[in-house]
Amino acid sequence: MNIIVDAFGGDNAPLEVIKGCKIAEENLGTNIILTGDEEIIKKTAGENDIDISRMDIIHADGVFDIHDKPTTILKSGKNTSLAVGLKALSEGKGNAFLSAGSTGALVAGATFIVKRIKGIKRAALAPVLPTEKGRLMLIDGGANIDCTSDMLVQFAIMASAYMEKVKGIKKPRVGLINVGAEDTKGRELELEAYKLLSEAPVNFCGNLEAREMPKGNFDVAVTDGFTGNVALKLYEGMGAFIGNKMKDIFSGGIKSKLSALMVLGKIKALRKQMDYTEEGGAVLMGVSKPVIKAHGSSDAKAFYNAIRQAKACVDGGVIEAIEKSI
Amino acid sequence: MNIIVDAFGGDNAPLEVIKGCKIAEENLGTNIILTGDEEIIKKTAGENDIDISRMDIIHADGVFDIHDKPTTILKSGKNTSLAVGLKALSEGKGNAFLSAGSTGALVAGATFIVKRIKGIKRAALAPVLPTEKGRLMLIDGGANIDCTSDMLVQFAIMASAYMEKVKGIKKPRVGLINVGAEDTKGRELELEAYKLLSEAPVNFCGNLEAREMPKGNFDVAVTDGFTGNVALKLYEGMGAFIGNKMKDIFSGGIKSKLSALMVLGKIKALRKQMDYTEEGGAVLMGVSKPVIKAHGSSDAKAFYNAIRQAKACVDGGVIEAIEKSI
Repeated sequence: MNIIVDAFGGDNAPLEVIKGCKIAEENLGTNIILTGDEEIIKKTAGENDIDISRMDIIHADGVFDIHDKPTTILKSGKNTSLAVGLKALSEGKGNAFLSAGSTGALVAGATFIVKRIKGIKRAALAPVLPTEKGRLMLIDGGANIDCTSDMLVQFAIMASAYMEKVKGIKKPRVGLINVGAEDTKGRELELEAYKLLSEAPVNFCGNLEAREMPKGNFDVAVTDGFTGNVALKLYEGMGAFIGNKMKDIFSGGIKSKLSALMVLGKIKALRKQMDYTEEGGAVLMGVSKPVIKAHGSSDAKAFYNAIRQAKACVDGGVIEAIEKSI
Repeated sequence: MNIIVDAFGGDNAPLEVIKGCKIAEENLGTNIILTGDEEIIKKTAGENDIDISRMDIIHADGVFDIHDKPTTILKSGKNTSLAVGLKALSEGKGNAFLSAGSTGALVAGATFIVKRIKGIKRAALAPVLPTEKGRLMLIDGGANIDCTSDMLVQFAIMASAYMEKVKGIKKPRVGLINVGAEDTKGRELELEAYKLLSEAPVNFCGNLEAREMPKGNFDVAVTDGFTGNVALKLYEGMGAFIGNKMKDIFSGGIKSKLSALMVLGKIKALRKQMDYTEEGGAVLMGVSKPVIKAHGSSDAKAFYNAIRQAKACVDGGVIEAIEKSI
């Protein structure tokens, strides 16, 4: 399996990207194809004693500036490591692509360079969130701020395919994010989507109030990209908030530190459970080949996990499952 | 000061309501006017040794069923403790009203019985959320699922008045909940609201990404009632999720319990900080008299805090401040 990786995406590129790729090469047996400035990649690897002799490099001059308008990826940005990677994917040089670069450019580039799965109206970002009992795929996490009810149904089908094929969940429970449990709740969008989802080939379990999201009684949470982006960022923000509070509790004096030592195992387990990067990145669902958006602040371990996730998408046949369902 | 309280709103009515009113009477010096079935109120108080001889009771036969359509409060529901309380408020029998009953019915009833402040397009629910540094008023928390940009500007003005008059914050920092920091981000609603807020008589500090909400760098978060309701419920849900995780950490064995004992003070302080009911309930902003929506699961302390909040709205002259700004 060949995984194409944007070596210049994210805050910690290219070193952490290369490190993560090396871990993946050693542990997953995947072939890595890096895109980006060949000289810098080789220099960085050399300076840090990372053997990249078994990795391929596709040279790209530029780096996409996350402040640039996303659609510039198609013209002025076509020589960036991001665009070159997407092009390589579309040409069949690899089985999947991942980048920690600009989300907007990745969505635009994947849509127009790699193309959507036939019949899919829009690609959607699908992060996987931690819950009390496992993981929840949120879709759309921000690719489409305005959505129609048809799009929401396709999102539900795509996320269900992922949760089944990658996470091994039979009949993933799909919830529609809404302001109440009753089917009379919500905007026109939710009222229409509720009806359509009830008849769609997914295990639709009704409306999902956001307070239920962390409880783990749903496997897929469907919503428009505006609401989904707010929910995603609040999920992250609350996680960080509580992480800081925990630090406060367990630091500052001998008693606090002793206290922490006594429950260290549990603290570590919680930290791991709450760690987004454990799962990988957000999947760009609806594109004809697996594309993963890694978190901008990813470190080597996060890149490794995102590569593992990309491999799982290929191994599980997520795209094929979506093609069948649509 | 006379505070009218719906004795039959919420899961723990009427006992916890009466208890909370008693604490308020003793600690705040407020006169309490209870609405609801007089016989049951007196019986409940008597059985629990609560002296309510100084409280007034306005009899109401019925209790509004939270499953009923909100607007039925105006006709078939007009004899409920909720409707009777709102009517008493509109007739000047009290300075403020609070209920832990149906949110929808409270919004509908307050809008049509107590009426809106002149010039205000829509009443909005404004819960006060805990943050790292203090408190954040979220508006609209769910009263209007579809909003125009004009409404968002009025929400910002009203919440600013509250944070200034009740919380003593000079020039409250207003943020517009959005999917990015740049002024080009968001739906039509956010693009328009951004412009209008920049020219409005509030301290507009730009877009607010949801992950920033818990950090405490904003005092007011403005959004439509759909997004606001999702954010509010996720805030609550994540708080509960983490609360459960903390319990897991500190229970189960002698080491865990010892660990908890060592940091008990900090745990208690965190629990207090994260406790929504410490602040009271959600304020129904835009109505011509202070109306508070207490949490459905409120206990005596929560009712006491909601009464304290109602009193603070009256003392601070929140309504008058809004009238001046509109």
